[in-house]
Amino acid sequence: MFRREHFNAAHRLHNPAWNEEENARIFGKCNNANFHGHNYDLIVQLTGEVNPATGYVFDLKILSDLVKENVLDKFDHKNLNLDTEEFRTLNPSAENIAIVIYDILRTKISDAYDLKIRLYETERNYVEYPI
Amino acid sequence: MFRREHFNAAHRLHNPAWNEEENARIFGKCNNANFHGHNYDLIVQLTGEVNPATGYVFDLKILSDLVKENVLDKFDHKNLNLDTEEFRTLNPSAENIAIVIYDILRTKISDAYDLKIRLYETERNYVEYPI
Amino acid sequence: MFRREHFNAAHRLHNPAWNEEENARIFGKCNNANFHGHNYDLIVQLTGEVNPATGYVFDLKILSDLVKENVLDKFDHKNLNLDTEEFRTLNPSAENIAIVIYDILRTKISDAYDLKIRLYETERNYVEYPI
Amino acid sequence: MFRREHFNAAHRLHNPAWNEEENARIFGKCNNANFHGHNYDLIVQLTGEVNPATGYVFDLKILSDLVKENVLDKFDHKNLNLDTEEFRTLNPSAENIAIVIYDILRTKISDAYDLKIRLYETERNYVEYPI
Amino acid sequence: MFRREHFNAAHRLHNPAWNEEENARIFGKCNNANFHGHNYDLIVQLTGEVNPATGYVFDLKILSDLVKENVLDKFDHKNLNLDTEEFRTLNPSAENIAIVIYDILRTKISDAYDLKIRLYETERNYVEYPI
Amino acid sequence: MFRREHFNAAHRLHNPAWNEEENARIFGKCNNANFHGHNYDLIVQLTGEVNPATGYVFDLKILSDLVKENVLDKFDHKNLNLDTEEFRTLNPSAENIAIVIYDILRTKISDAYDLKIRLYETERNYVEYPI
Repeated sequence: MFRREHFNAAHRLHNPAWNEEENARIFGKCNNANFHGHNYDLIVQLTGEVNPATGYVFDLKILSDLVKENVLDKFDHKNLNLDTEEFRTLNPSAENIAIVIYDILRTKISDAYDLKIRLYETERNYVEYPI
Repeated sequence: MFRREHFNAAHRLHNPAWNEEENARIFGKCNNANFHGHNYDLIVQLTGEVNPATGYVFDLKILSDLVKENVLDKFDHKNLNLDTEEFRTLNPSAENIAIVIYDILRTKISDAYDLKIRLYETERNYVEYPI
Repeated sequence: MFRREHFNAAHRLHNPAWNEEENARIFGKCNNANFHGHNYDLIVQLTGEVNPATGYVFDLKILSDLVKENVLDKFDHKNLNLDTEEFRTLNPSAENIAIVIYDILRTKISDAYDLKIRLYETERNYVEYPI
Repeated sequence: MFRREHFNAAHRLHNPAWNEEENARIFGKCNNANFHGHNYDLIVQLTGEVNPATGYVFDLKILSDLVKENVLDKFDHKNLNLDTEEFRTLNPSAENIAIVIYDILRTKISDAYDLKIRLYETERNYVEYPI
Repeated sequence: MFRREHFNAAHRLHNPAWNEEENARIFGKCNNANFHGHNYDLIVQLTGEVNPATGYVFDLKILSDLVKENVLDKFDHKNLNLDTEEFRTLNPSAENIAIVIYDILRTKISDAYDLKIRLYETERNYVEYPI
Repeated sequence: MFRREHFNAAHRLHNPAWNEEENARIFGKCNNANFHGHNYDLIVQLTGEVNPATGYVFDLKILSDLVKENVLDKFDHKNLNLDTEEFRTLNPSAENIAIVIYDILRTKISDAYDLKIRLYETERNYVEYPI
């Protein structure tokens, strides 16, 4: 089953091991020093058996609350580079954000469920993890 | 290949083995005694070889007619709990609706094709079967 | 400014002044005795001056809370015909639902703002009020 | 005729005439000191006569280039508060961004055309100018 | 009330009063001699009083049938330039297609209703008529 | 990672080995002799390791340029049957277009990446390759 959630955040793509020219060449407009931002659409997929008592694979309300408490409250309306521990040294590319969200949620959800993250940075650019 | 279809229906989530409090606790607003409803978006995926004479995996018109006759005519503008045989005793969760639709279409489509169902209950909640 | 909200409900179109045949002829599948349902998308438009201190026409959080308390809590996951006072005798067509929502919100929002309702019953059928 | 364009930007809502508590109370999460961001969808509407030689109200390519050069190149992948002259002292609410875009484009497009801006900050929050 | 319909067609923008260079300069890729095509989304808006017996402004099924018989059967899966009388000499720009559809439907719908057409040529380019 | 691109084209489904009646019976409206057309949405998926220096699986700008130069410049605003080498004898069904695009891009992208194509012919009809 799949649940779509949403958050807005500022970020900047930057590799501190490179000089300014290299960062500008590789990351282009996404390297803007003062940040830019996105409306991120997050799709959390849990795969498992249907519970015959409920007809659910997983309770949507519980999943939505888990995502809200562990992901949205942490990232929504934040600057990913400056306001979060996770991206203090990790580049907040869509791929890395998806991996971070996966790692957070993986510890909160029983191993009885496979977990997959899809993250839309824009409606034309998105990623999945794990592959 | 994928074909998106659409139907509207009323339903209620309820487990007759539980008392009212338990049903309300587990199913929340979805347990409302007088039903609520959804615009369901159904995506039918058939996987197979491309027919060299047509360039099709499967004829879209034939698939659309199959879905109309066997799924939409049965569920569209209906109360899933009261108006259908399939959900007289089976809880009409998105997961169970997807399984029922899969089972119906599986008997109508040659085993030369893999079949997968995706069902959107809302644009934020959806399921796939088989997993 | 515009705010999009969402609710799910069951309904039935029916005119008690007509016999069964007439109801079936006029309302077709929407007359199903056991109800069907929709995911309603509601867009509330407020028109007024921009407040120079905030840059807002109207605070989105306050508007969203107003809609939640006065509209969504009343209609979401409900049977419009059976569970609501508003549609006990009024046919819950998209047009009438939009008018009812307008009348509810008009009393909660200062006359300094023009108010307009757009209601999507499906992504292909929608209405606006006032015209 | 209408043309939809797109840009991403970081921003922060803040009124320097207010103290921190007042800003936090009024702007909530949108006041985050390190900014957050959005995928903005911009719809530019030009109203005028159809040119009988072309069948166009206005050439789409020319309009798209005008918007790119005068709006997108200025705001896309930028921090509206820090990187732009327009929002150095003006709060970058959706309403104010729409007004600024209108004022920019109004000087570039003949008065023979009425101009209207619709700006989506998210798919649930949007504004129009002029009203 | 609004009804969204859909058709696919090929077309070419071309003014026979101009030479090839002029056509290429003005219409660019849309002048391709062998045509290109679009998925057109058509929104028909009827404005009028709500009928108290039905709760409808206009019966959706009747409107949808009117559009199908008079517009979709004429333009769907057609080459607008070669297969239709309407665009034999009229350039099939989005603006002109909207006007032609308006003129067709205006004769089929009582003057008690205002009629407005919105036509999407792509999700980024669309027009309305009348203005 | 996924990148969505867009092109418009005219096409006709036709098998020259069949007579007119057979073509009309199998391909229906899609066999229209003067072509019809679509807005095609193309999603290119590359699967591979995240580069730790960039946080990217693949640079979006490079991918977008590759698709533009090798796919969009070839098919956008074209008649697939008449204007392209690829579909001179191959029926331009959605399945075949997806395979052709896959074959083109596969030669341009390192084997370190898995490649998958999804092609929307309309929002209700789409295909994937490879399966």
